Amino acid sequence: MKVAASVDLVIQNATIATASDVLPEQDIAIGGGKILLLGQNLTALFPGAGVLDAQGAYVVPGGVDSHVHLQQDNNPTGDTFETGTRSAVAGGTTTVLAFATQTRTDESLHPIVEDYHARAAGNCYCDYGFHLILTNPTPSILDEEMPVLVREGGISSVKLYMTYKPLRLRDRDILDVMESTRRLGMTTMIHAENAEMIEWMTDKLEARRLTAPYYHAVSRPNIAEDEATYRIISLAELADIPILIVHMSSKMAAAHVRRAQTRLLPVHAETCPQYLFFTSEKLRGEGFEGAKCVCSPALREDPLHLDAMWEGLVNGTFTTFSSDHAPSKFDHPIGKKAGTSTFTKIPNGLPGLETRMPSLFCHGVLTGRLSIQKFVELTSSNPAKLYGMGGSKGTIAPGHDADLVIWYPTQEQAANYKALSGRAASSMTPFALDNAMLHHDIDYTPFEGMEFANWPRYTILRGKVVWDRDNGGVLGSKGDGLFLKRGRSTLSKPRGVFVNELDLYAK
Amino acid sequence: MKVAASVDLVIQNATIATASDVLPEQDIAIGGGKILLLGQNLTALFPGAGVLDAQGAYVVPGGVDSHVHLQQDNNPTGDTFETGTRSAVAGGTTTVLAFATQTRTDESLHPIVEDYHARAAGNCYCDYGFHLILTNPTPSILDEEMPVLVREGGISSVKLYMTYKPLRLRDRDILDVMESTRRLGMTTMIHAENAEMIEWMTDKLEARRLTAPYYHAVSRPNIAEDEATYRIISLAELADIPILIVHMSSKMAAAHVRRAQTRLLPVHAETCPQYLFFTSEKLRGEGFEGAKCVCSPALREDPLHLDAMWEGLVNGTFTTFSSDHAPSKFDHPIGKKAGTSTFTKIPNGLPGLETRMPSLFCHGVLTGRLSIQKFVELTSSNPAKLYGMGGSKGTIAPGHDADLVIWYPTQEQAANYKALSGRAASSMTPFALDNAMLHHDIDYTPFEGMEFANWPRYTILRGKVVWDRDNGGVLGSKGDGLFLKRGRSTLSKPRGVFVNELDLYAK
Amino acid sequence: MKVAASVDLVIQNATIATASDVLPEQDIAIGGGKILLLGQNLTALFPGAGVLDAQGAYVVPGGVDSHVHLQQDNNPTGDTFETGTRSAVAGGTTTVLAFATQTRTDESLHPIVEDYHARAAGNCYCDYGFHLILTNPTPSILDEEMPVLVREGGISSVKLYMTYKPLRLRDRDILDVMESTRRLGMTTMIHAENAEMIEWMTDKLEARRLTAPYYHAVSRPNIAEDEATYRIISLAELADIPILIVHMSSKMAAAHVRRAQTRLLPVHAETCPQYLFFTSEKLRGEGFEGAKCVCSPALREDPLHLDAMWEGLVNGTFTTFSSDHAPSKFDHPIGKKAGTSTFTKIPNGLPGLETRMPSLFCHGVLTGRLSIQKFVELTSSNPAKLYGMGGSKGTIAPGHDADLVIWYPTQEQAANYKALSGRAASSMTPFALDNAMLHHDIDYTPFEGMEFANWPRYTILRGKVVWDRDNGGVLGSKGDGLFLKRGRSTLSKPRGVFVNELDLYAK
Amino acid sequence: MKVAASVDLVIQNATIATASDVLPEQDIAIGGGKILLLGQNLTALFPGAGVLDAQGAYVVPGGVDSHVHLQQDNNPTGDTFETGTRSAVAGGTTTVLAFATQTRTDESLHPIVEDYHARAAGNCYCDYGFHLILTNPTPSILDEEMPVLVREGGISSVKLYMTYKPLRLRDRDILDVMESTRRLGMTTMIHAENAEMIEWMTDKLEARRLTAPYYHAVSRPNIAEDEATYRIISLAELADIPILIVHMSSKMAAAHVRRAQTRLLPVHAETCPQYLFFTSEKLRGEGFEGAKCVCSPALREDPLHLDAMWEGLVNGTFTTFSSDHAPSKFDHPIGKKAGTSTFTKIPNGLPGLETRMPSLFCHGVLTGRLSIQKFVELTSSNPAKLYGMGGSKGTIAPGHDADLVIWYPTQEQAANYKALSGRAASSMTPFALDNAMLHHDIDYTPFEGMEFANWPRYTILRGKVVWDRDNGGVLGSKGDGLFLKRGRSTLSKPRGVFVNELDLYAK
Repeated sequence: MKVAASVDLVIQNATIATASDVLPEQDIAIGGGKILLLGQNLTALFPGAGVLDAQGAYVVPGGVDSHVHLQQDNNPTGDTFETGTRSAVAGGTTTVLAFATQTRTDESLHPIVEDYHARAAGNCYCDYGFHLILTNPTPSILDEEMPVLVREGGISSVKLYMTYKPLRLRDRDILDVMESTRRLGMTTMIHAENAEMIEWMTDKLEARRLTAPYYHAVSRPNIAEDEATYRIISLAELADIPILIVHMSSKMAAAHVRRAQTRLLPVHAETCPQYLFFTSEKLRGEGFEGAKCVCSPALREDPLHLDAMWEGLVNGTFTTFSSDHAPSKFDHPIGKKAGTSTFTKIPNGLPGLETRMPSLFCHGVLTGRLSIQKFVELTSSNPAKLYGMGGSKGTIAPGHDADLVIWYPTQEQAANYKALSGRAASSMTPFALDNAMLHHDIDYTPFEGMEFANWPRYTILRGKVVWDRDNGGVLGSKGDGLFLKRGRSTLSKPRGVFVNELDLYAK
Repeated sequence: MKVAASVDLVIQNATIATASDVLPEQDIAIGGGKILLLGQNLTALFPGAGVLDAQGAYVVPGGVDSHVHLQQDNNPTGDTFETGTRSAVAGGTTTVLAFATQTRTDESLHPIVEDYHARAAGNCYCDYGFHLILTNPTPSILDEEMPVLVREGGISSVKLYMTYKPLRLRDRDILDVMESTRRLGMTTMIHAENAEMIEWMTDKLEARRLTAPYYHAVSRPNIAEDEATYRIISLAELADIPILIVHMSSKMAAAHVRRAQTRLLPVHAETCPQYLFFTSEKLRGEGFEGAKCVCSPALREDPLHLDAMWEGLVNGTFTTFSSDHAPSKFDHPIGKKAGTSTFTKIPNGLPGLETRMPSLFCHGVLTGRLSIQKFVELTSSNPAKLYGMGGSKGTIAPGHDADLVIWYPTQEQAANYKALSGRAASSMTPFALDNAMLHHDIDYTPFEGMEFANWPRYTILRGKVVWDRDNGGVLGSKGDGLFLKRGRSTLSKPRGVFVNELDLYAK
Repeated sequence: MKVAASVDLVIQNATIATASDVLPEQDIAIGGGKILLLGQNLTALFPGAGVLDAQGAYVVPGGVDSHVHLQQDNNPTGDTFETGTRSAVAGGTTTVLAFATQTRTDESLHPIVEDYHARAAGNCYCDYGFHLILTNPTPSILDEEMPVLVREGGISSVKLYMTYKPLRLRDRDILDVMESTRRLGMTTMIHAENAEMIEWMTDKLEARRLTAPYYHAVSRPNIAEDEATYRIISLAELADIPILIVHMSSKMAAAHVRRAQTRLLPVHAETCPQYLFFTSEKLRGEGFEGAKCVCSPALREDPLHLDAMWEGLVNGTFTTFSSDHAPSKFDHPIGKKAGTSTFTKIPNGLPGLETRMPSLFCHGVLTGRLSIQKFVELTSSNPAKLYGMGGSKGTIAPGHDADLVIWYPTQEQAANYKALSGRAASSMTPFALDNAMLHHDIDYTPFEGMEFANWPRYTILRGKVVWDRDNGGVLGSKGDGLFLKRGRSTLSKPRGVFVNELDLYAK
Repeated sequence: MKVAASVDLVIQNATIATASDVLPEQDIAIGGGKILLLGQNLTALFPGAGVLDAQGAYVVPGGVDSHVHLQQDNNPTGDTFETGTRSAVAGGTTTVLAFATQTRTDESLHPIVEDYHARAAGNCYCDYGFHLILTNPTPSILDEEMPVLVREGGISSVKLYMTYKPLRLRDRDILDVMESTRRLGMTTMIHAENAEMIEWMTDKLEARRLTAPYYHAVSRPNIAEDEATYRIISLAELADIPILIVHMSSKMAAAHVRRAQTRLLPVHAETCPQYLFFTSEKLRGEGFEGAKCVCSPALREDPLHLDAMWEGLVNGTFTTFSSDHAPSKFDHPIGKKAGTSTFTKIPNGLPGLETRMPSLFCHGVLTGRLSIQKFVELTSSNPAKLYGMGGSKGTIAPGHDADLVIWYPTQEQAANYKALSGRAASSMTPFALDNAMLHHDIDYTPFEGMEFANWPRYTILRGKVVWDRDNGGVLGSKGDGLFLKRGRSTLSKPRGVFVNELDLYAK
C-alpha cells in the first residue's frame, strides 16, 4: 500500500480552513512534502507516521506573500533573502515573491535574473519566486527575452511603476509592455501614483522648507493615487489585459477598482497591513521617529481610508493582502536617517513580512471583521492563483505542497472547543509586540507595541516543521526554500473585448 | 482499519471543483453515505470498494436548489414532491428547499408544517427542507411558534412577499418579522416588487382591454422591482438583519444590491435561469403560447437586463442561483389556460428544477463566462451555507454527505484531457432539449429546443447513484430523500450596526 | 407720455440681482404696482416720482415662500394669516403659499377652500395662494372638483404626505392623484418619509420609555427619508409627472434627487433653513427646551447632512428654499408642552418665515458659499415659476409686480462701493437675533442668538413700501396682500416618456 | 432729457429671453451701441428713434462663440478673421474668441499676440478676443509676460492641450501653468485626450494599413477622453483652479464632470454641435468624403454618446456650447485631401460657426428638448461670464452692449401668437441647408441637407443691424468688430480648498 508507506506526518483533528470552507475534525496525511490524504482518523491508518496535534486549531495554507523586496541594490540596508525569509516562516509565510530589478541602463534581463538567482539560491528559509521590474522595456527585451524567461525561467509576472524618477514608465511604454504580457500570459503589477503631481507638490514643499518626515505624506496626496488608478485601469481596458494594482491605500482609488470589477474588467488590487492600521499621524513621531513610517503610497491623513481598506478586504475589492516588505534600517547613515535633511532622501518602505499574517488574523479574523475563509483567500489562495502557483500552493488538498500554518486556539476559543467537543486544546497567550521578537534584520517595527491575541504555533514547509513557536522557534534552515517556476494565472485572463469593437490584436 | 472497511465506493480520477479550488486527479472514498477520504490512488487502498470512473470529468457537490415550489395548495397543477424531486436528481440537484405556506387566515404554523411533512415524507428522490411563507405574522406565531420550529423543527428560514394580494405584508409587518428572525438567527427571503405600482398598471391595462399574456410583463415594469429592492434593503438595514432577495431580474435592482454589499450590508440576492436567457418577447408567442413564460418578476423587455444578470453572477452580486420552480400545466383548465380571458388569471411560474444546473453549466461554464468554482458556489455551496446546511451539504470534503454530480467531459474536453494525460475519457454528446426528456409532471418546458453541450452523467445522493444518464436514468426511489433539519446561516449574520447609533435591541 | 405719468417711484442706483444677472447702477421705475422701466438715470426722466436710494445696495425680487403653514386647524397655537404674513414682509417675503387642508372625512374640497379664503381675505400683509393638501382623494374630488379649482380657483398645486397617520396616502392613492395632477397640469408636492419605519421605531422607543424630545430624532432616522425619496421618485417616473419633494434633510436622499435630475426626470426638491444650520443636538436642550426644535423630517445627527444641504443648494439639486413655517407656541398647554410626557405628542414644526431670507443671505451670500443669483433663484424665481406665478412674481423686469427687497450694503460692502464708485452708501450693522425683534406670534425662535450681518432694509409689495427697517418697521397693513390665482408651472412638465415604452395615458 | 435724445433704435414687442427669464411684450431702447431702457410702449417715449418690429419674436443676447480657430498658421486653408466673423454674424454670433498660438520654439508671447492683433484688426464683422495657446510655458512667460497680457492686454484665458505632439503639455507643465493662471485669475481651457493611448492605437492601425478616414475615430476611442478628463479634473483639484474642458463628446467623460460639479469643484465643460448630431458613421462616407468629418475628439461610434451630450446640455453639465470652428477646405491639396494616404495626415476640424446657434435653436429649443433660457445661457450668457465679459456681453439689460439676435416666429409660433395676442406676426419658412447659403470660405458643411425650421432674422452688433436675412443679408462691414479687453471670470474662481488641508499657496 504505497500511500501508507509514504506518509511521514499526520496532522490531527485540525479545523481546516480553505478559501471557501471550514472543515472541523480533519486529519491531514503528509508524505514526500505533499498532502496525500484528507480524512478522519488517519492516525489509525498510518500508525508509523509522526503526529502533530491540532486540537481546536485552525490549519490554513501557508502564507503566500506576493510583494516582498529582498536584497535589492536600491535598498542596501534592507533584509537579505536569508533574513527576510527567516522572518517569513516565523510569521506563517511559506512562499515569497521578490523582485529582480532592471535599471534604466540595463539592456538585458538575463544577467539580472541570474544575479538574483545567485543572491537567493541556498539562502532561503521558504520557497520563492521573482517578479521582473521593468524600467527599460526595449523591443528585444519584450519580444526576445521575456518569452524565454516565462517559458524556461518560470517568471510569469512583471511590475511597472507609474512613479519614482528612476523607475517610472510613460503611458505609451506601459501599453507596449501590456501588449507583450498579454501575449505571454503574464500578470502585470502596477505601482499607481501620478509622478508629476508628487514632483510638483514636493518642489513646492521644499521651496517652503517643509522637509520633516510628515511632509512626505503631504507631498503624495491620495488624489495622486486616485488619478493613477483610474488611468491604469483605462490603459488595461484599452489593451485588454488583467492587472493587479499594488499597495492600495485610498478610498476613492479602491472605488475605481470596485467599479471596474462590477463591469467584469479583470482588475485586481492589493492592500497591505500599514494601510489598515496607521494614519499619517505616525509620521509626526517625535524627533525623526516619523521616518520609520515613510512609505509610498504614504499613510493617509483621514482615517476613513483605513475603514475603506477594511471594507475592500471584506467586499472583495482586494484580491491579495501583501506586506510590501521593503525596509531600511532606521539608525544607519544610509538607512532612514539619510533623510534627516529632507523627507525626499528618506528611503521608502517598512518591514512587515513577519507581521502580515498575524496582524490580519488577530485584528481581522478574531475580531469578526473578516471570515477565516476570506483570510485564507487573501493571504494565500488568491496570490497563489494570480501568480501561477495554483497547482501546488494556496490550498489544502491532496497533491498540493504541504505548506501549512497551525493557529492554536485562543483561550476563549479553546474553552468553546472544550464545551463543544469535550476535548481539551492547548491555547495561545496574548502579548504586545517587541521588535526583538521578530526575525528580520531591521532595527524597528512599525507594529511595536501592537497587541497580538494569536500567532502561528507551527509553520510547515513542504511537510517540514520550520517554525515551532514554543519549541525552538525557527527550526528550518536557509537552504529549505526552493525557487518556484511559475505558470499562467488561473485567476484572470484577457477578455477579448475591445473598446472600439475592433480586435486590436488581429493579424 | 475501520475506515477502509467502511468504504463502499471510490470515485476515481476526478477533477474535483469546490467553490475555491479545482483539483485534478483526485479519488473520493465514500462510505455510509459520507465522504471519508480525499486523496490519490485510493482504489489501491480499498480494493473491495466499488469504483466509479471520473476520468477527465468534473465532480462537483450535489446541487442545492433553495427555491422550489412543490405541491402547494395555490399551485394545483404543479409538481408534487415526488415528481419535482425526481426531476431534481435527473438534473444534478440533490437538495431542494420547498415552502410551507401560511394563508392569511391560518392562526398557527404547526398544522401547516405537519401537513407539508405529510406531503413530502417518503415521497422524495432527494433531500429536502422547508422555508416558511408568512402571511399572517401574529405575535403568537413570531414569539411562540417560530422558536419551536427553529430549534426543534430545523426550519431556519422564512419567505416574505411584498406583492400579491393574498400574500403581501406591509413594511411594518416586515419589520416585526425581521425582529423575530434576527432573534432566532433565521434567514429572511424576500419577493421584492411594489404591489401597488403593479395593481395600478394592471387596472389601467385591463381598462384598455390589453389582456394578452404579453401585458403581464407590461404590468410589472422593472421599476416596481427596483423600488421594492431599494425599500427592502432599507428595512433590513434599519432592522439590522441579513436578507436574500429572491429571483432578481432587473439591472438597476441588482445595482442596489451591489451598492449595499459594497457597504458590507448583509444583503444577498438570487437570480434564476429564466432571467439569464429570456426577454418578454417570449410572452408574445403565437396564440396563447406566451402564457407558458408568465412568471413574476416578469421577463424583461430590454436584453440589457439579461447581460446584467450574467454580470451579477460573475461579479458576486448574486449569492445563489435557483430555479424558482413553480410550474403549472399549460393545457389544463386550471393551469395556464385559466388566463385565456386576461393575463391576471394566468398562474405565475415556470418549471426549471431539472434544467437549472445543466443550463448554467453549458451556457456559463463551458462558454467561459463563469468559472467552475463560481458555478459550484452559486448552485451548491452558497445555498448550503446561507440556509444552515454548511456542515453536510455544499462542498466535497471528508465528513460531508456524499452528494455529487459527475459531468463527463465534452468531446473537446476529452480530447484535451487525452492530450494532457495520455488517458482516454468517455464524453458527452450535445443535444437539443425536448420536454419528453424531462422528469417533471409538466406538459412543457420554456427551455424547449435549447442546445445542451453537457448534462450530468451521474448524480449521487449520500453515496447512492440516483441518476445514471446512460444506464437506466433515474435509479433512485421516492423514499431516498430525507428531511433536513437546518441550523443557522454560516454565510451572514446581523452586524450590530444601527442606523442611528442607538442599539435598537438593547434592553 | 403715458409711461412717465404713471411712474410713482424710482429706485435709484440699484445693483439688481436676478437669477442670472447682477446689474449695477440700475434705476427701476415703478407705477401702478408694476415695474415699468429699467434703465439708468431714470429720475431725470420722471422728476415727479418718489425716489428710493439703493446706492451700493442689492435689489432682489420679493421673496416667495412656497411652504408656509398658517391658521391650520391641526396647528392651533401657530400663526394666523395676519401674524404670519406680517412676519413675512419684515423678512423680505412678499408672497406666501399656504395650505388648504382636507381631513380624512372631508368629502368635498370646495367648502375647505372657501373656509381658507375666509381666514385669509383682508388679513394678509403680503400676497398669498393656496396649495391643497389631499388626504381623501376620491374620484369625485379628482375628476370633478380639482378641474374647477385649477381653472377657476387658481389653485394649481397639491401636497401629499407619505407619513403621519391622519395624512398619509398609500402608493396606489398617490398614483391615482398623480394621474389627475398630470392631466390638470398641477404641481405635486410630497412629504417623503416612510411612515411604517417611523411607527416601528417609535413603538420600540416608547416601549423602552425613551420619550424625551431627543428621541423624536431617533425615531425618524434619515433612512426613512432616503427610502421614501427613492420611492416617490419611482412613482413619479412611472406616472410621468413632475414632483417637488419638500423639506429635504438627508444627504443620501439628496443624492437620489440629483441622480434623477441627471437622467432628466422632472424631480424638484426643497430644503429649509433648519436643515442648513442645526443638528439633532438641538433637541437635547436643557429640560424640555429641545421640544422647540422638534420638526419633521427631524434635525439630523451627523453634520455631514448640513454640508450636503449646502452642497445641494449650490449644485442645483434644490429648486426652492422655503421656510416650512409651521410653528407652535412653546409655553402653552396645547403647544410644544403638550409633549412633555412623550415626544410623540409634541406638535411638529418651527417658526422660520421671517428669518428665511436673511439667514440665507447672511450665511450663504455674504460668506461666499452661494452667489447672489442663486439666492434669487432659490428664494424667489424658482418658486414663482414652479408654482405658476411666472408672469408676475420672481424676477425684476418690466411688466412684473414691483415686489422688491433692498439689502443695504454691509459696512465692508459700502467701503468697497465707495472705493469703486466714489459714492458713499448707507450700510447695515450686524446684530444677534432676539425673538422680540420678530413679528410672528410665537414665543421663541430656533435662530435665537444667531448673528445676522444684514437684514432687508426695505420690502416693497407691488410698489408699496411695506417694511422699512429703520423708519417704522412694518408699514403695510393687513389688507395689502391679495389672493393669487396661479397657472401652470413654467419650470417643469411631464416628459411623455414611459417606463415600458407604452403610453400609459393613450386612449 | 438726455436718455431720450440718445435713443437711436427701439425694438418693439419683443419676447426677451435671458438665461433665467422669458419676458413677453418688451421694448428695448438702444443708443450709442448700448441698451438704454427696457420697458413697454417705449416707441411713444422716443418718437424720433428707428423701430424694429419683433412681434411674436424671441430676442436673445448676441451669440458668444468662445471656441473659434481663425487664421492660425497650422490651419492654412481655414477661415480668416474676415470670412469667419462674416459667417458668425450671419448665424447670430456677435462675439468670437479666437486663439493666439505659441509654437514650441516661441520664447515670447508678445510678438505672437501682436501678430494676431495685426491679422484681426479692421477685418472683423463682430467683436473678438483672444485666448492664448501655451505650448512652451517657460518661467519668463508665466511670471513676466502673462501678467502684462492679462492686465494690459485684456487676455484672460489660456488653452492647454493634453494631446497632439506639437502642442501637448505634460502633467507637470500643466500644474505649473495652473499655478500662474490661478494667481492671475485666468480661465484655463483644456483639450482632454490621452495622447499616448492615441499614439499607440494609431501605430497599431497604420501597421495594419487601416488608414481610411474612419480609422481616425478608431484611433481615438472615447476611453482616451474619459481618462484625460478624469486626470485634468484631478490636476485642477490639486491646484485648486477652475477649468473648462473643451469639446466634450463622451458619456463617461461627461459623467466625470457631473460628479466633480456635484462636489462643487469649479469644473466647466463645453460641447459642440457635431457631438449632438453625428456618429462616426459619418466618417465612412463614400470615397474620401468621410474626411470632411474628421475632428478631434472624434465622432463617436455609439449613439448613446449623442444622447448623453443632449442630456448634459439640459442637466447643466455643460457650461458653454461652442462651435470649435476649425475648418480646412476639402478639395485642396493641403486641405482635407492631404490625408488621402492615411488619416493621420487629414487636418482635424470642421466648420460650424454659422450653424451653431440655428442648429441648437431648431433642434433643441423648437423640439422642446431645451428651454429658451438654457439656450441663452449656453450660447451667450455663460461664455460671456466665464471669459470675463460679464458687464457688457451675454444678457439683455440696460448698460450692456446692444448685441441681439431676433428670431422671427415659425409659422406655428406665429399662429399661436395671433391666437393669444390678436396681433399678426411675420414668420420664418423652414429649409434644408446648402453650403452655398453660408458665409464662410469653406467648400463644404457637415450640416449639408440638415432641416432648419428657423434662422436668425436680424443680428444686431452694438446697436447696428449687421445681418438682415430677408433684406441684404450681411449688412455689416469688416471693420465693425472690435477687440475685447476681457477681465476675470464672474462664473467661477478658486475655492481655497486643498486636497491635503495645507494651503499650497501660503507664503
